[in-house]
Amino acid sequence: MKPLLFGVFENAQANDSGTALWRHPDHDRVHFDTLDYWKNIAAICEQGGVDFLFLADAWGWSEIAGTRRDICDRESLDLPRLDPAIIIAALIDATSHLGLVMTGSTLVEAPYSFARRLATLDHLSRGRIGWNVVTTGTAETAVSAFGQSMVAHDDRYDMADDFMDLAYKLFEGGWAPDAIERDRAGRFSDPAKVHRIVHDGPYFKCNGYGNAHYSPQGTPVIFQAGSSPRGLKFAGRHGECVFLGGGSDEDVSNQVRTIRQQAQACGRDSEQDIKILCAFTCVIGSDENDAREKHRAISQSQTLDAAAASYAMFTGLDLTSYPGSTKMNALSTELSQTQLNRLGDMTVEEVLSSWLENGVRPPPVLGSASQIVEHLQTRVAQTGIDGFLFAPTIQPSSTEDFVREILPEFRRTTGTMQQPGALLRQRMMGTESPYLVDRHRGARFRPATATTI
Amino acid sequence: MKPLLFGVFENAQANDSGTALWRHPDHDRVHFDTLDYWKNIAAICEQGGVDFLFLADAWGWSEIAGTRRDICDRESLDLPRLDPAIIIAALIDATSHLGLVMTGSTLVEAPYSFARRLATLDHLSRGRIGWNVVTTGTAETAVSAFGQSMVAHDDRYDMADDFMDLAYKLFEGGWAPDAIERDRAGRFSDPAKVHRIVHDGPYFKCNGYGNAHYSPQGTPVIFQAGSSPRGLKFAGRHGECVFLGGGSDEDVSNQVRTIRQQAQACGRDSEQDIKILCAFTCVIGSDENDAREKHRAISQSQTLDAAAASYAMFTGLDLTSYPGSTKMNALSTELSQTQLNRLGDMTVEEVLSSWLENGVRPPPVLGSASQIVEHLQTRVAQTGIDGFLFAPTIQPSSTEDFVREILPEFRRTTGTMQQPGALLRQRMMGTESPYLVDRHRGARFRPATATTI
Repeated sequence: MKPLLFGVFENAQANDSGTALWRHPDHDRVHFDTLDYWKNIAAICEQGGVDFLFLADAWGWSEIAGTRRDICDRESLDLPRLDPAIIIAALIDATSHLGLVMTGSTLVEAPYSFARRLATLDHLSRGRIGWNVVTTGTAETAVSAFGQSMVAHDDRYDMADDFMDLAYKLFEGGWAPDAIERDRAGRFSDPAKVHRIVHDGPYFKCNGYGNAHYSPQGTPVIFQAGSSPRGLKFAGRHGECVFLGGGSDEDVSNQVRTIRQQAQACGRDSEQDIKILCAFTCVIGSDENDAREKHRAISQSQTLDAAAASYAMFTGLDLTSYPGSTKMNALSTELSQTQLNRLGDMTVEEVLSSWLENGVRPPPVLGSASQIVEHLQTRVAQTGIDGFLFAPTIQPSSTEDFVREILPEFRRTTGTMQQPGALLRQRMMGTESPYLVDRHRGARFRPATATTI
Repeated sequence: MKPLLFGVFENAQANDSGTALWRHPDHDRVHFDTLDYWKNIAAICEQGGVDFLFLADAWGWSEIAGTRRDICDRESLDLPRLDPAIIIAALIDATSHLGLVMTGSTLVEAPYSFARRLATLDHLSRGRIGWNVVTTGTAETAVSAFGQSMVAHDDRYDMADDFMDLAYKLFEGGWAPDAIERDRAGRFSDPAKVHRIVHDGPYFKCNGYGNAHYSPQGTPVIFQAGSSPRGLKFAGRHGECVFLGGGSDEDVSNQVRTIRQQAQACGRDSEQDIKILCAFTCVIGSDENDAREKHRAISQSQTLDAAAASYAMFTGLDLTSYPGSTKMNALSTELSQTQLNRLGDMTVEEVLSSWLENGVRPPPVLGSASQIVEHLQTRVAQTGIDGFLFAPTIQPSSTEDFVREILPEFRRTTGTMQQPGALLRQRMMGTESPYLVDRHRGARFRPATATTI
């Protein structure tokens, strides 16, 4: 079996993924505002052989008809939420080879300063940084907070395309990898290898010199999710590591096929150049029933009210205002279409009940460790994915269980060891070079053409 | 003598302050893109009893008539330059009580995300963060890189005033210090203590909830420099720790008086509420002549060409295009007026020669350790300043010399020990509370009035 990749999904807020598990007595993530919490999680991941720690992010909050309900504060459904760039920076010194992936929004960041922030992370970590590109699903409240104008769903992807091209110019086109000589008897940089960036896009403009020099990976490893048609097209064009929310093997297979086709249409190698990871949650028991009981106990630390408010945070829809028997595909939203599309056939009542159990996470795999390992093996065989993004329920015990009972057993039985490679891209993509492959869109912005595109 | 404060001035680029000392064989800051360099500096500061490590920042580069000269790369006069927020984040775990101060620009940052970034730093460091507010002197090239429009010098301060008011709302007005209860049997946050922020200023707008909850200090300690009339007014209104570039005792005295008057005019206590630090450099020798020789050897690692190009970076003026005898006050610039005003009586030739020795740093105090200690004591007695911001020449030896030979001797002879206080504001301001004093402008944006101002 090909080498497989494993990440752990995290979030710098008490709850995430549409769940409200903070009341569970074992859930330490209520201390997400302490470095001790993050160092513990990072150590478990690194020592457990996880390839990368993934920090999600968002900017909006739950609002129904212009009002944020009190339950959002009581249950910490959305806020407070801290800056993932600062958290991964604070983890650099506490880790040595763990990949550190942060989410950054093309809706609210300024490409020029954002590129310097990522380059600084990549320099200090010696090439362990990934950037999860998001267009911000909760755009309506986010733009209001930033004092910006609303941008519709598909337009946000056009905006993201423009952001990416400028970001590539800053990562790849400003400073050649060998521009810095640091020769006290000669010169610090070679002026012939430092280029002015000119970008005059529909959303973003830049005329000047990038602040940061070429970092160990140049462009951080590009992560992407989003399964709307426009999102899949974007992933095929830019994503090096694309993650899927889950679903049946057939659903996942179809998405994998679409993404690989999109990548190929962009002149990329559909297997080598794009790695697809599937979200995955598990609860380990002595058998399936025991695991089911454990999962029920975890879910029941939440209330139905919290689930409804949390669902509204992700979709803008207050499901409590519709009859329980309403079919989901009768509703529509300018926000995340992903949630509506995947739930089209279910009723409002069924969705709320399922949301309470899992939020946007895939339903957990329930069973003994060997059953779960077998499930993962089947998943890989049936869908052609390249690995998993593990979404824990209760931290840190959920991740501890995963790295202790599932990951080593999976690797042992499949003969797939953790990839070698000092830098994140080498480990993730299996390439010798830590830089973007020449076939990737970002590579066309390298110095020779940087000022003319 | 009152307790005195000491900071160390640093910069995430090979050279700073208008000097080009990177060729000096002992200067380690050519490795500013490694965490090892920063951990070493932070350890020297913390173990040496320095109150805070200060990271400067800038966004522009040197350009004359629209062109960046090759010498800027050869001598690394301006670029590359990394993100100070990421560097101080990476230093949190390596330090335990050192203050970490970063520069942030009101010209190019978005207040909503910038406030979350600072709050995250303050949470993870448990209250050790300061924010040096700058309006960005190299505005012309900076706005070009960000694709923004140019803002004139005094207008940038109006913009900064607007930025500050929104930042205060986000730091102080969104989440009460006791909003988070984290009570698993009760609630996570008290909804009555979470407030919507509304800001409709001339430059910045916001309508929504702050992402980050109240951090250990609420508002990070506000640092400010800038000695133009408009800059001094801004410092009097917002600055808790204001630093001056240096000059004669009389010059410094006058600036101290002006700033304290400005603070008083804003309803602040002119002594308790605002601490004034003077920039300070020294070279220690067996006597004055020995120190002078050492300093000359340091300065001579640079060229006159580098000095002229570096001067242009700070002022937009190419001094090589004027006769050497031209008086400085015959010139004018939309960029940093500070440099022109303080040099009005000198000729172009004198300025270039002085710039080569010191850049924008004050001329170093040259002498034996006891002579330098005496100089500092006289400076404090003559000017009423509250401490010093030490600007090293060669790193780390310059800072090592300072903390080993000057700081302990100064504290011993003056009987002024390092201030106790776990949080940076307590240490800097000598207050019991880690929060802004009620008299500070930022305090008026606290919850009771947050939505109505």
